[in-house]
Amino acid sequence: MLGNCLENVKKNVPLVYNITNYVTVNDVANALLACGASPIMSDDPEDVVEITSICKGLNINIGTLNKRSIEGMFLAGARANELGHVVLLDPVGAGASSLRTNTALELMEKVHFDVIRGNISEIKTLANGNGTTKGVDADAADAVTEENLDSMVCFVKTFAKQVGSVIAITGAIDLVSDGETCFVIRNGRPEMSKITGTGCQLSGIMTAYLTANPENKTEAAAAAVCLMGLAGEVGSGRSWCL
Amino acid sequence: MLGNCLENVKKNVPLVYNITNYVTVNDVANALLACGASPIMSDDPEDVVEITSICKGLNINIGTLNKRSIEGMFLAGARANELGHVVLLDPVGAGASSLRTNTALELMEKVHFDVIRGNISEIKTLANGNGTTKGVDADAADAVTEENLDSMVCFVKTFAKQVGSVIAITGAIDLVSDGETCFVIRNGRPEMSKITGTGCQLSGIMTAYLTANPENKTEAAAAAVCLMGLAGEVGSGRSWCL
Amino acid sequence: MLGNCLENVKKNVPLVYNITNYVTVNDVANALLACGASPIMSDDPEDVVEITSICKGLNINIGTLNKRSIEGMFLAGARANELGHVVLLDPVGAGASSLRTNTALELMEKVHFDVIRGNISEIKTLANGNGTTKGVDADAADAVTEENLDSMVCFVKTFAKQVGSVIAITGAIDLVSDGETCFVIRNGRPEMSKITGTGCQLSGIMTAYLTANPENKTEAAAAAVCLMGLAGEVGSGRSWCL
Repeated sequence: MLGNCLENVKKNVPLVYNITNYVTVNDVANALLACGASPIMSDDPEDVVEITSICKGLNINIGTLNKRSIEGMFLAGARANELGHVVLLDPVGAGASSLRTNTALELMEKVHFDVIRGNISEIKTLANGNGTTKGVDADAADAVTEENLDSMVCFVKTFAKQVGSVIAITGAIDLVSDGETCFVIRNGRPEMSKITGTGCQLSGIMTAYLTANPENKTEAAAAAVCLMGLAGEVGSGRSWCL
Repeated sequence: MLGNCLENVKKNVPLVYNITNYVTVNDVANALLACGASPIMSDDPEDVVEITSICKGLNINIGTLNKRSIEGMFLAGARANELGHVVLLDPVGAGASSLRTNTALELMEKVHFDVIRGNISEIKTLANGNGTTKGVDADAADAVTEENLDSMVCFVKTFAKQVGSVIAITGAIDLVSDGETCFVIRNGRPEMSKITGTGCQLSGIMTAYLTANPENKTEAAAAAVCLMGLAGEVGSGRSWCL
Repeated sequence: MLGNCLENVKKNVPLVYNITNYVTVNDVANALLACGASPIMSDDPEDVVEITSICKGLNINIGTLNKRSIEGMFLAGARANELGHVVLLDPVGAGASSLRTNTALELMEKVHFDVIRGNISEIKTLANGNGTTKGVDADAADAVTEENLDSMVCFVKTFAKQVGSVIAITGAIDLVSDGETCFVIRNGRPEMSKITGTGCQLSGIMTAYLTANPENKTEAAAAAVCLMGLAGEVGSGRSWCL
């Protein structure tokens, strides 16, 4: 399955449109190229509708919001929905400030997202309307662990069903659910939290996977999570070898 | 010639001012430092005129346009023209949206560019007033090949003469023409299209070359293209060696 | 001392809020993670007050100013002062344009900074109200050398006393003074000036050190300078070994 989803990205070379933060944007572009997709970035309200029209996938990341980019996100999301394009939300820092929490919640109201991908604190914030995200990192108290796994799986399935989106919670243990099934993924490396942007990169890659595998969105989202974890393992292994 | 042009960059350490996109900006700064130049970035209309005045080279890259940076580009371009400074245009994504196409065309109307450097689809868009740029990458149907080389050389010479700028089209085969002569450059590596920003980096480096070699702009532009291709070969070779 | 300051960063994992330029922002985030801190970036006036409230350290870097981010800097600085949080100013390019010089000077008027860190030309600009910063790099004529060391130590002590901030001047020889004592630090590598953002990274790291060592700000600032120099030596050594 993983191989198939990736093969479809490489075969289709989907154009993925990213309205994303300026912190990790270069790595998002390179991650998309590395998996076989083609990235484009833009955020001005005058540009977003047209760029959305030519891209089958839209990745909205709220990492460094401003008035202009927020307006762009709503316009792009609406256009992508009209055209039936794939749309993903990465609610970076939801729970850390009202602007982030409220923008994410309002986006969820106005735009249908195929997938919402975040850390556990961000996703809890979206489910509860408020949260305790520690800056842009998950609050350790929220972590998905072997001990609370059953209740967390229940939480993610319930939330996915409620909002009608695939929900992907990533961390040491990753959960991907569409409300019916739930993938529990245990790969990756703890070092991945010591570099910035692994979540943002995954959201970009996941959008490419969804765009190239529109018939199997839950599997595509899970496959992207697996790929990112494997990439972390390969990267970590490589640095040990040097 | 290549060596001479590079020597002049290293000797003069030109200050190169970049109004550029936030995706590849860090690599542009590092590429400029690596070739011996000194980069500065800024885009606010209140800052651009003064920064243009202290920098002998100006690199305008339309990768992530917004209203503020567009205004900055016109002000900086006008000031650079007044002062007789070198100005380069990188029309990233011209052909992919009206905002990009129209901004590039209007810049060409209001500002004299010493060099315009882009991929073949972007340059065709500027020549025809519209195009089929695939996001920020060239449309494969547009590619310069051994088969269509004669007609592409004719196209680039005609367009260079028409606009009065050196035109640099980069891709698998690179063309650099001032309307009279045309350099055809066949180096570099296909892997260069798998990382983001090689074009943006080249535009930065080319601006440094032009600034340090103002008497030989066509040769300087061609030398910068050769350097970037060689850098790709060295980088690629290195990764094979590891 | 160095070890202690770093241990406190690793133990406290301070959230460091950065209003910074889009050129080097990714490296600033990774530098903060690498030393054990947790970075967050944001610049919209609607977001900055709340983000300042949750972060014990604030790093204001004027590398790519715009009207929106300038407004954010003043709001965040005022809030951080109210809360007694650590605030650092990195006056990137002060002396290169009026917007940069005036913004830095006005920030110093309205916000109390625990530390101001810049190159010698930037700091001279702040002390004199004008300067000759070469773009974003120090003017060679300004350099701190063994020959002028006594007078430079006198300058930095006087300026530190006058503004009531720790002043950190970094370059081949680094000076850190609170007006009473002055650390003279001679480590690092000349290659560090050949990559962009080492100063910005240091400002981020220094904010983390100050936040985790609020009782010993002068020592913390000096320890951060030592760490950055050592990092340059390790990085340089590594590249020689490969």
